[in-house]
Amino acid sequence: MRLAIDAMGGDHAPEAIVKGAVQAVSSMNNLEITLIGDEEKITPYISKSDQITIIHTTEVITADDEPVRAVRKKKQASMVLMAKEVKEGRADGCISAGNTGALMSAGLFGIGRLDGVERPALSPTLPTEDGRGFLMLDVGANVDAKSTHLLQYAIIGSIYSEKVRGVQSPRVGLLNVGTEDGKGSELTKKSFELMSDAPINFIGNVESRDLLNGIADVVVTDGFTGNVTLKTIEGTASTMFSMIKSTFMSNFKTKFAATLVKSDLKGLKKQLDYSEYGGAGLFGLAAPVIKAHGSSNDRAIYNAIKQACHMIEKDVTGTIEETLKEMQDEGGEL
Amino acid sequence: MRLAIDAMGGDHAPEAIVKGAVQAVSSMNNLEITLIGDEEKITPYISKSDQITIIHTTEVITADDEPVRAVRKKKQASMVLMAKEVKEGRADGCISAGNTGALMSAGLFGIGRLDGVERPALSPTLPTEDGRGFLMLDVGANVDAKSTHLLQYAIIGSIYSEKVRGVQSPRVGLLNVGTEDGKGSELTKKSFELMSDAPINFIGNVESRDLLNGIADVVVTDGFTGNVTLKTIEGTASTMFSMIKSTFMSNFKTKFAATLVKSDLKGLKKQLDYSEYGGAGLFGLAAPVIKAHGSSNDRAIYNAIKQACHMIEKDVTGTIEETLKEMQDEGGEL
Repeated sequence: MRLAIDAMGGDHAPEAIVKGAVQAVSSMNNLEITLIGDEEKITPYISKSDQITIIHTTEVITADDEPVRAVRKKKQASMVLMAKEVKEGRADGCISAGNTGALMSAGLFGIGRLDGVERPALSPTLPTEDGRGFLMLDVGANVDAKSTHLLQYAIIGSIYSEKVRGVQSPRVGLLNVGTEDGKGSELTKKSFELMSDAPINFIGNVESRDLLNGIADVVVTDGFTGNVTLKTIEGTASTMFSMIKSTFMSNFKTKFAATLVKSDLKGLKKQLDYSEYGGAGLFGLAAPVIKAHGSSNDRAIYNAIKQACHMIEKDVTGTIEETLKEMQDEGGEL
Repeated sequence: MRLAIDAMGGDHAPEAIVKGAVQAVSSMNNLEITLIGDEEKITPYISKSDQITIIHTTEVITADDEPVRAVRKKKQASMVLMAKEVKEGRADGCISAGNTGALMSAGLFGIGRLDGVERPALSPTLPTEDGRGFLMLDVGANVDAKSTHLLQYAIIGSIYSEKVRGVQSPRVGLLNVGTEDGKGSELTKKSFELMSDAPINFIGNVESRDLLNGIADVVVTDGFTGNVTLKTIEGTASTMFSMIKSTFMSNFKTKFAATLVKSDLKGLKKQLDYSEYGGAGLFGLAAPVIKAHGSSNDRAIYNAIKQACHMIEKDVTGTIEETLKEMQDEGGEL
């Protein structure tokens, strides 16, 4: 397996990226990694390995760059060259912790969509209380989604969860304002109908208050709602941690209590940290493309590499393409 | 001031409703309340008062009733008779802790919309870390909203926050997937333009991760996104409290720590309890209509009564109507 990795994307690049890659090749013999970025900054973190090669470039797309424009103009950017490795067949998949919008553009322009997929979806795995996690898609790649897009997300998400996450017959839910059939907006009503006829284990509408309880393995929604939901979870968790901290700092008694539960509360924070589940997939592109979290450490990069490798081994993109084609041949909505 | 109150709606009806009403009349001399419901079940909680009268009925709309159908069929239901008191001028506003959809229907059919408002909005005040709270609208009355609806919500929310919540020049934000101008869906892009020209303190796009930090006093969104956001906040907070509880119960040391911070953590829970801010307004109807939370206790009902009284005293509905009319006269989008 061959992966192309943008060594310059993310808050801790290139150190975390390179270290994660080094860990990955040392545990997987059949893995070859091409790191794209500033060779001078990469080499300090790398020991000689015939499993890792470097493509040198100093151009970088930053978090502040306007995505589409940056991908078009910065032709030598590490992220753009990374996508080129996949497009030209020298890599089976790629990973970046950089600008999400730019990665989507680089994926669309450089690698292209899978046959049968109208819009790719940004798909992170989010934490649940029981530690199993759930896949949510889309969380922002496509903010004006149609019902056929949501149907495609449902199929893509189901296949990924089964093949890569090892969930048997994944429960696919449609994010909605109520659980009863017939609830919701025009978009969700139409999507509900399409998903009911799809070759997936569709469990119907789910409400956002049940997401972290693990109500579904795959939660399907449009990119606008998904983005707002994801950021609401992040914001609420972060505010609560901050309020808990203030509570513990309020007097002598609570400060003492804090010393007793500190390590346990850290465990709680870790339980809610979704970098443990790997990166977010840009599903629907012609090859596995993983967006690692901007704040990824080496461990998170290592997890994203494993995730990309699983997608390649299990031929997730091939299976998605076949399934969508079969549905089309059967005269379905796709 | 005269309020009509559905004595039979909510989990703790009629006890909590009646007790809240009794507290309210004892602290406000100029308040008259008409309680609508089963007289036999109401009277045990009431002491003789010439400020409270009862309209007897045994018919009730339940949480499981289909809203529109229930309001049409159950003509003697406490909620329907309550709306009738307002419509026929015997009350200035009304409150129910019952079925939200049915209250919206009873409000629309029984009381009607304000001139210039196309769609009423369900508008709760949600907690922030600093305790000031923010108004969010709409959270589910209108799931397929248009940009003119969002513009109206912005104006309604701004007027309410200034008049009732006492916020000077309330900061009105548009919930979106990014903070930059030009971000978002077709709906939010168009709404952004309209809100930029409105007579409000529009601060632009806000992201859901900043809501509980108090990024805005009024957060405007469509009913679908608002409903999902509200339930995501509730679900995330509830999951975190449950995880914190498990953390504290995990061993002897943490159990001991729990005894030290128990009361402080209860304070934290209370800080996130939005019944402290009153009920959710059904803004855009021709009179103040307040939806108290289904789990309201007497304190929450008392707060909802105060809220309705403030809306009446400050003539919130009149001001909204005038403002919208002025905008229309000036050739605006309304």
